[in-house]
Amino acid sequence: MPEPLMLKLGGSVVTRKGSHGEINGENIAMICREIGGHRDVPLLIIHGAGSCGHPEAERYRLMDGLSQENLEGVSVTHRAVRRLNDALVSALREQAVEAVGLHPLHLCYAENGRIVAMEHRHIREMLSRSMVPVLHGDVVMDGVRGATIISGDQIVAFLGRALRFSRIGLATDVAGVLAGEAVIPVLTPETAMQVRIGSSLHTDVTGGMGGKITELLELARAGTCSEIFHATQIGAFLEGRPHGGTVVKGG
Amino acid sequence: MPEPLMLKLGGSVVTRKGSHGEINGENIAMICREIGGHRDVPLLIIHGAGSCGHPEAERYRLMDGLSQENLEGVSVTHRAVRRLNDALVSALREQAVEAVGLHPLHLCYAENGRIVAMEHRHIREMLSRSMVPVLHGDVVMDGVRGATIISGDQIVAFLGRALRFSRIGLATDVAGVLAGEAVIPVLTPETAMQVRIGSSLHTDVTGGMGGKITELLELARAGTCSEIFHATQIGAFLEGRPHGGTVVKGG
Repeated sequence: MPEPLMLKLGGSVVTRKGSHGEINGENIAMICREIGGHRDVPLLIIHGAGSCGHPEAERYRLMDGLSQENLEGVSVTHRAVRRLNDALVSALREQAVEAVGLHPLHLCYAENGRIVAMEHRHIREMLSRSMVPVLHGDVVMDGVRGATIISGDQIVAFLGRALRFSRIGLATDVAGVLAGEAVIPVLTPETAMQVRIGSSLHTDVTGGMGGKITELLELARAGTCSEIFHATQIGAFLEGRPHGGTVVKGG
Repeated sequence: MPEPLMLKLGGSVVTRKGSHGEINGENIAMICREIGGHRDVPLLIIHGAGSCGHPEAERYRLMDGLSQENLEGVSVTHRAVRRLNDALVSALREQAVEAVGLHPLHLCYAENGRIVAMEHRHIREMLSRSMVPVLHGDVVMDGVRGATIISGDQIVAFLGRALRFSRIGLATDVAGVLAGEAVIPVLTPETAMQVRIGSSLHTDVTGGMGGKITELLELARAGTCSEIFHATQIGAFLEGRPHGGTVVKGG
């Protein structure tokens, strides 16, 4: 069996920016067709919440922690992103991909905004049996703050390390990490200090491209490279062809 | 804050026996009104799958393990019981109970039909913040069989021990464990050998009353008592009043 790949779908790819809860059905259909055409590749998918969850997390101020006042924010935020996860899982299953949604709220425990525990043996078992687990950014319980928001990118970094993926791809709405108009082909901790982080710094409670790169550099330091490319290049990533994006390396 | 209680709702209480996926809305409404009237009691709820999940588990022969042939059984079975979980969580939220569904498929890892790992710190955090986690019998991934069916009663036993509940109640469609027509008031490993296990031995891939009692006796041996009573007695259980059912003790 080929080695499993991890694919992250940016929140700005699967939802419409600036909307309240609008799922980008065209992008999802395009992506699921692409994945359906590569069913021989064992795949773990993680998606961002985008406009399905971020507006709710902000409205309930979940970043400030949990109190009696914003308690229902956990459920409301989770259901917003679960709706997106359901849509993606259904679209994958329509392409005969044996996709199964897995919600971090059910699965993870965090302390001070960072995942400290996340079972992954069932994820490994799914991958070994041609099932495609689909996780996502989510609200999770936090032993210090009560609850916190965990970005899809933090889950990428955690599972990338725990399950030792050799190739991790992040599909975004830009061609890669940009310096001005140009894609930076290779990003290391050293070069990252020098470049201006590109065009994806729209409102995003989990940090947009900046937060993503912090997670990926940490993962790269621990030995796992990742690749950032435009969502139209998912097929190229799955086939191991050039995608014109950025490779994040440890140095 | 009062000590948290655990309440198991039998599959035959929340669904209609012998049906294919019929949720018992009247029972759920009655139960949720009762729980809504006791919102000061920290509560963990676990429900059986009943006719939402058992027919699917049998159809796909998930008890025999997983192969390429019955792979979609995981998703189909899970979605059947998730539908029931959603209905119960919604009905609880209508009663202003801050209920949150948690799916064992997302959370647990099993080996040879037994749960070997299940994060519970997030469940503890929820309980400490007046949230009501609602778990259920489910299909879960199994490192030996591929997948397996975990009964609500096995989850009761696992979490009863892990979270050290002092009172555990199981609401069923009978008044308790029966010897003939009479409720056995106290059941211990010794007396269990002698009694005929009562009227709940209808088709149930997880073992009906027999499987339940095996789990509860094991829990009792480890020091945690449990109480089996009719679903109409949930209020009595929550208030610590006599419910006319069976207490399962270690000896």
